[in-house]
Amino acid sequence: MPEELWKTAITNVEPGKIRVRGYNITDIMEKLSYAETVYLILKGELPSKAEAELMNAILVSSIDHSATPPSVLGARTVISGGNSLNAAVAGGVLVIGDTHGGAIENSARIMQQWAKKDDDVNNIAEELVTWLKENKKRMPGFGHRLHKVDPRTAKLFEIAQRNGYKGKHIDLCKAIEKTLEQKLGKKLPINVDGAIAAVISDMGFDWRLGKAFFIISRVPGLVAHAYEEMTREKPMRKLGPLPFTYDGPPDREI
Amino acid sequence: MPEELWKTAITNVEPGKIRVRGYNITDIMEKLSYAETVYLILKGELPSKAEAELMNAILVSSIDHSATPPSVLGARTVISGGNSLNAAVAGGVLVIGDTHGGAIENSARIMQQWAKKDDDVNNIAEELVTWLKENKKRMPGFGHRLHKVDPRTAKLFEIAQRNGYKGKHIDLCKAIEKTLEQKLGKKLPINVDGAIAAVISDMGFDWRLGKAFFIISRVPGLVAHAYEEMTREKPMRKLGPLPFTYDGPPDREI
Amino acid sequence: MPEELWKTAITNVEPGKIRVRGYNITDIMEKLSYAETVYLILKGELPSKAEAELMNAILVSSIDHSATPPSVLGARTVISGGNSLNAAVAGGVLVIGDTHGGAIENSARIMQQWAKKDDDVNNIAEELVTWLKENKKRMPGFGHRLHKVDPRTAKLFEIAQRNGYKGKHIDLCKAIEKTLEQKLGKKLPINVDGAIAAVISDMGFDWRLGKAFFIISRVPGLVAHAYEEMTREKPMRKLGPLPFTYDGPPDREI
Amino acid sequence: MPEELWKTAITNVEPGKIRVRGYNITDIMEKLSYAETVYLILKGELPSKAEAELMNAILVSSIDHSATPPSVLGARTVISGGNSLNAAVAGGVLVIGDTHGGAIENSARIMQQWAKKDDDVNNIAEELVTWLKENKKRMPGFGHRLHKVDPRTAKLFEIAQRNGYKGKHIDLCKAIEKTLEQKLGKKLPINVDGAIAAVISDMGFDWRLGKAFFIISRVPGLVAHAYEEMTREKPMRKLGPLPFTYDGPPDREI
Repeated sequence: MPEELWKTAITNVEPGKIRVRGYNITDIMEKLSYAETVYLILKGELPSKAEAELMNAILVSSIDHSATPPSVLGARTVISGGNSLNAAVAGGVLVIGDTHGGAIENSARIMQQWAKKDDDVNNIAEELVTWLKENKKRMPGFGHRLHKVDPRTAKLFEIAQRNGYKGKHIDLCKAIEKTLEQKLGKKLPINVDGAIAAVISDMGFDWRLGKAFFIISRVPGLVAHAYEEMTREKPMRKLGPLPFTYDGPPDREI
Repeated sequence: MPEELWKTAITNVEPGKIRVRGYNITDIMEKLSYAETVYLILKGELPSKAEAELMNAILVSSIDHSATPPSVLGARTVISGGNSLNAAVAGGVLVIGDTHGGAIENSARIMQQWAKKDDDVNNIAEELVTWLKENKKRMPGFGHRLHKVDPRTAKLFEIAQRNGYKGKHIDLCKAIEKTLEQKLGKKLPINVDGAIAAVISDMGFDWRLGKAFFIISRVPGLVAHAYEEMTREKPMRKLGPLPFTYDGPPDREI
Repeated sequence: MPEELWKTAITNVEPGKIRVRGYNITDIMEKLSYAETVYLILKGELPSKAEAELMNAILVSSIDHSATPPSVLGARTVISGGNSLNAAVAGGVLVIGDTHGGAIENSARIMQQWAKKDDDVNNIAEELVTWLKENKKRMPGFGHRLHKVDPRTAKLFEIAQRNGYKGKHIDLCKAIEKTLEQKLGKKLPINVDGAIAAVISDMGFDWRLGKAFFIISRVPGLVAHAYEEMTREKPMRKLGPLPFTYDGPPDREI
Repeated sequence: MPEELWKTAITNVEPGKIRVRGYNITDIMEKLSYAETVYLILKGELPSKAEAELMNAILVSSIDHSATPPSVLGARTVISGGNSLNAAVAGGVLVIGDTHGGAIENSARIMQQWAKKDDDVNNIAEELVTWLKENKKRMPGFGHRLHKVDPRTAKLFEIAQRNGYKGKHIDLCKAIEKTLEQKLGKKLPINVDGAIAAVISDMGFDWRLGKAFFIISRVPGLVAHAYEEMTREKPMRKLGPLPFTYDGPPDREI
C-alpha cells in the first residue's frame, strides 16, 4: 500500500505539457539533435558543442557491425520463431552482456577508478598495466578480433581534438595503449569501446551507464536485422547453431 | 491512485499460509505431483487420475529436442554474450513464437472451433480439410521435419486409451490425420504438438493457453542448454549464424 | 549444414573497414547526425534535409513520458529484481506491444492501405471513418488519455510544413481528424503516434517498421528510468502492483 | 565457418528417436514423473526415490506466491502492453534476479563453499556467522518479509527426514539457523529458498543452477497470472507504479 510518494527526476508530464529534465519537449524537438537529447536525458544537463558532436559520433559509431555479433543472432532468432519486432529487439538487447558490448562499462569502470589517483597518467598507466599483468587480467577496450586498427577510435579522438575536448580519461586511455605495447611487446590498439569509455568518462558519466551507450547506438541496427529477417527469410530457417555432435551417455534403459 | 481493488483468483497468501487455488501449499507438496500442481494452477481444479497421467506425459514429452531448436540457440546466445541464467531462459522463451512451439496453440484453436459443430468427427474432418485445401492453409500439429512418425504421439494416445480417456478433440484429431492422407494423398502424421493440442482441448483448456504447455515443458531443457553453454563453452564463440555474404549497395561516398 | 550463403544488405565489415548501407562508418560519424544514420540504416538511403529534420523530431518526441507507461514499469521492475541494465532495457522493450506503443504501426498500416485508393483524401477519410463506425473500431493514433491536444503533433507537422514536406498520408491523417469530429461529434485530435505514422508513411517506410520508431526513440528513456531505479531506490521495493484482493475458491482440502 | 563440431550432452535426436541423457523419451513419458525428468535433464542421472520426492516438493513449493512478487508484475505488464504469452513469461523470468529468487543461488553458493571445510557443522556455522557479522552481510535464505515461519521449509525437511535423506548441507543449514539466533539474538528462520538451497546442495547440484529451481517452479505461476491478466483485465490498465511525484529541475528554457 503506498505509504509515501516515490520520486522521479526525469520527465514531468501534465495535460498538454511534457518536460524532459525541465525542458519543453516541443522546444527540444525544434532545437536539439536526438544525440543531444540522449545526452540530456541521461546526464540531466545540456551538452556543450564538443560534447554534442562527440555524443553524436559515439551513437553513430556502434550502430551496426554486420550479422556476426551475437545480439544480431538473438534478434533474428526471435523473428525466426515467429514473434513481433519488439520481442526481437528485446531478444537482441538481452544478449548484450559482459562479453558482448560490455567492454565500455568495464573499461570505464577501471579508468574511472585509476584516474582518481593524484598522479601523472603515464605513471598511472604503468601501475595499472603492471597490476593487470600480475593478476592475469586483460584490459577491456583494447585490441579487436577483426580490426587491427579500429577506424572508429581514430575518428572519435579526432573529433575530440578538433573541438579541444580534453580530459584525464582520454589521456589515460592513450597512455594505457602505449604502456601495453611497451610491457607486453605487442600492439593492442584502443578499440571503439575503449575510446567511448574514455570519452564518456571525461563527460562525467558513471561507468554503470557504460552498456547504455552501446545499447542505444545498436538498437536501430538490431531493428534493421530483425526487419530484414522478417521480410527476406523463411521462418524457422537454420540460422544456426553450427553443426555439433553428441557426447553424452550412450543409449540405455530405465 | 487505486480507486478500487483488482482481483486475482490464483493464490491466497497470509503470514504463515499459502493457498494455491484454495489448497494449502504444504498439502500440495505432500500429496500432489508437480504435473498435477501445474494442472491445478492453470485449470483451477484438481485433475482426475487420467488427466494427471496425461499432464505428466505432456510435460515430459517436450522437455528437450537437442540443440537445433531456435529457442535453444536463443538461450545459448544470451549466455554466450555474458549474461545470467534467468536472462538466458527469458531469451529462449522469447523465441517460442508462432513458428516455433506455436503449433499447439494454433492446432488447439482450430480443433476447438470446429469441434463445436454438432456433427460426426469424420464429417467435420472432411469439411475442415476441404476448407484448408481451398484456403491453401496447413493444419498445424501434423507432419514433422525430422520424425516420419512422432514417437511421442503414439505414447500420449496410448496413455489416454489405457485410462479410458476419450473426447471429441482426440477423435477429431485422428479423423483429421486420416482425412489428410485421403485428400492430399500423403501421410501427415499427428506430431507431438497436435497430440497435445487434442488432449488439452479434451481437458477443457482454452487454446490461448496452448503455448504454455510447450513453454512449461521446455524451460528445464533451456536451463540445461544454458548451463552447458556456461560451463563447457567459451564466451562469444561462433554459435552462429551460418556463413553469409553481402548484397547491399556497393561502396560509395556521401 | 550450410548449403548456401544467406544474405544481408545492411553492413559490410572487413578488417579495418565498416560500411553501413555502403557508406564508410568514419564518414558517417563525421558528416551525419545520429537521426540521419537511423534513417539510413532503416531505409537504405540518405534522407533529404526535410526528412532528416523530421526524423530527428520523431526520435526526440517520444524519448520519455514520465514513469507511468507500462514499459517504464517493466524496465524498473527488472532492476528491482536485481538484474543488469541490458536486461532492464529488454524488459521495457518487451512491454511495447499492440496496446502500448503499437499505435504507430496500426495507424500507419491503415493509412497506407487506404491511401492507395485513387481518390481525394477527404473522400477516403469519409469512407474510412464510416467503415470504422460500422465495424465498431477505433482509429489508432487519434485521441490521448491525458493530452487534450498533443503538443508534439503540432510541432511535427509544423516542421514538415516549414520544409515544404507534403504527402498523401499527412493529408489523409488531417482529413481523418476533421472527419472524425464531424461524424462522431467529438474531437479526437491526432496524437504523436498518429502524426509519426503519417510522416513515416510519406517517407515510404513499411508500416511493419512502425513500432521501431517508438522503440528507438524510447530506449534512452528506459535507460534513464532503469538507472534512476538502480541508483535511487531500494531493491525489491513495492513498485506495484496496486492493492488487490482474492476472489478464488475458499479454503478447502484435498 | 565451422572448423570443428561443438558438443552437447543433453539430448540425442534421430528420425523417430529422442533420447534425453540416453533414455528414450517414450520410456520417460511412461515411467518417470515430470519432476524426476527435470532432475534427470539437469543432473544427467536418475534420482533416487528420496531425491524424486524432494525434487517434486521443491518444484511444487515455489509455483506461486500471489500477485505481489515483481516477476508477476513483469509478466502481467507485458500482457497489459498487448503482447503474447511467451513474451509475458520471458518478461517475468527476466525479473528473477539477485534480489528476487536469487536467494537459492546465493545461499547454496555460501553453504557449498563453507561445507567443504573439514569440520563439524556447528563449528562451521559459528565461523560463518561470525564472518557474516564482521562483514555486515546477511545470510541469504533466512528470514522472510511476510512469513514468520515459512511453512514450506518444515515440509521440505520433513520429507527429507521421512526418507532418511541426510547431508552436510542440510545439517549446516539448520546449524546456521540456530547460530544466527544465538549470535544475533533474533530468530531468522530458514525460508523456502534456504531449505531448497540446502537440499539441492546435498543432491550435488552446482550452486550456479540455484536460480533454475526457482525459475522452473515459478513458470506455471507466471503463466497463470499472464492468462488471468489476458482474460480478466483491460489492456493498459494502471497495474502500477504507485503514485509518485517529480523532484527534478524546475521548468526552464533552452
